[in-house]
Amino acid sequence: MNIQLALDRMDIGNAIRVARQVEEYIDWIEVGTSLIKEFGIKSVETVKRAFPNKRVVADIKTMDNAKYECQLCFESGADMMTVMGVASPVTVETCLNEAKVYGKEVMIDLLHVNKPIVKRLLQYKEAIFCVHISKDEQELLRQSENHDFTLFKQMADYTLAVAGGISVDTIRQIKRFRPSIVIIGSAITRSENPQRAAKELRKLIRNGGM
Amino acid sequence: MNIQLALDRMDIGNAIRVARQVEEYIDWIEVGTSLIKEFGIKSVETVKRAFPNKRVVADIKTMDNAKYECQLCFESGADMMTVMGVASPVTVETCLNEAKVYGKEVMIDLLHVNKPIVKRLLQYKEAIFCVHISKDEQELLRQSENHDFTLFKQMADYTLAVAGGISVDTIRQIKRFRPSIVIIGSAITRSENPQRAAKELRKLIRNGGM
Repeated sequence: MNIQLALDRMDIGNAIRVARQVEEYIDWIEVGTSLIKEFGIKSVETVKRAFPNKRVVADIKTMDNAKYECQLCFESGADMMTVMGVASPVTVETCLNEAKVYGKEVMIDLLHVNKPIVKRLLQYKEAIFCVHISKDEQELLRQSENHDFTLFKQMADYTLAVAGGISVDTIRQIKRFRPSIVIIGSAITRSENPQRAAKELRKLIRNGGM
Repeated sequence: MNIQLALDRMDIGNAIRVARQVEEYIDWIEVGTSLIKEFGIKSVETVKRAFPNKRVVADIKTMDNAKYECQLCFESGADMMTVMGVASPVTVETCLNEAKVYGKEVMIDLLHVNKPIVKRLLQYKEAIFCVHISKDEQELLRQSENHDFTLFKQMADYTLAVAGGISVDTIRQIKRFRPSIVIIGSAITRSENPQRAAKELRKLIRNGGM
């Protein structure tokens, strides 16, 4: 199983600094939506240049203008971009087609999807699906244990990522569903000691045989 | 009725240049999603500084992390930000609350919403609602006349904007629903003569008593 380090709510310099501290314990690096919207697509370019051997995910959360946003991501060095599952079907399909042209990948973010949408999205077997509890919902719920585990069961044959307030506590719950990717942000980046936090998370995941 | 000029798929310098050419014919200026994602939030700051007397809309299309994205927009001078109607309810409400704190406004983008979502969103009487046909759908349909007019009827008591491939041809259809804001992008910005295009659109709208 892979750890995707999510870099959010910091400047590009700090993003690279924290990623450098933990790079031996993580697999993929996500340039978070907040970095892209605050500093533009150069955040993706700068991170990829700093970590040419890591898979870099541009969390651009495309809702429209799919071809243009794919080009922005892939031409800036992203290996994967994100599209919202709640976007129009044509937007999702354009991302998947564009990724094929570039030999890159698409992660479909399942934030706030309903059952008919999930059912429709399951046709895209080449995509990575991200089961996602939003930051806003986490703050509302004051807990990060609210992952929709029914989604995992429904999607057992797919490549799955899980995101949203994942920490040492919640990782134990998530383990049994064996997602391919666990997306971890503040549990590492906001830790007093990011390196120790990343090392501990890595160990937990290894211990579980994930 | 107001014309909101949407600036997309160009650099910040060209955005300001085209807005300057047509400023006497338009009311609000939208810093498009593509400008924000390509160049970051400084695109909003630069445009507002160039046009301090125009209402500037940051089309940031928030899906999550609402407070942070509102702060980015409003502290960069935006008078209004956009949130997706398909986002989690808490995300939409956080935007509305944050806008109140700043004395600013929120436009709820109705891209790909379904009936239950619209019904829920109608409680937000202070918001501006944007009936929106996506760029991707426009390209698929090869027509820009596919606006969902049933939404207009349902929302007659609300402040409405309409967006998506609006041109001289489609404005005639839209007129009868009397939206408060017509969002026009490429029909002006990609025109051979943006000034003449804006002038003509302005005249059409005035003639209709909008």
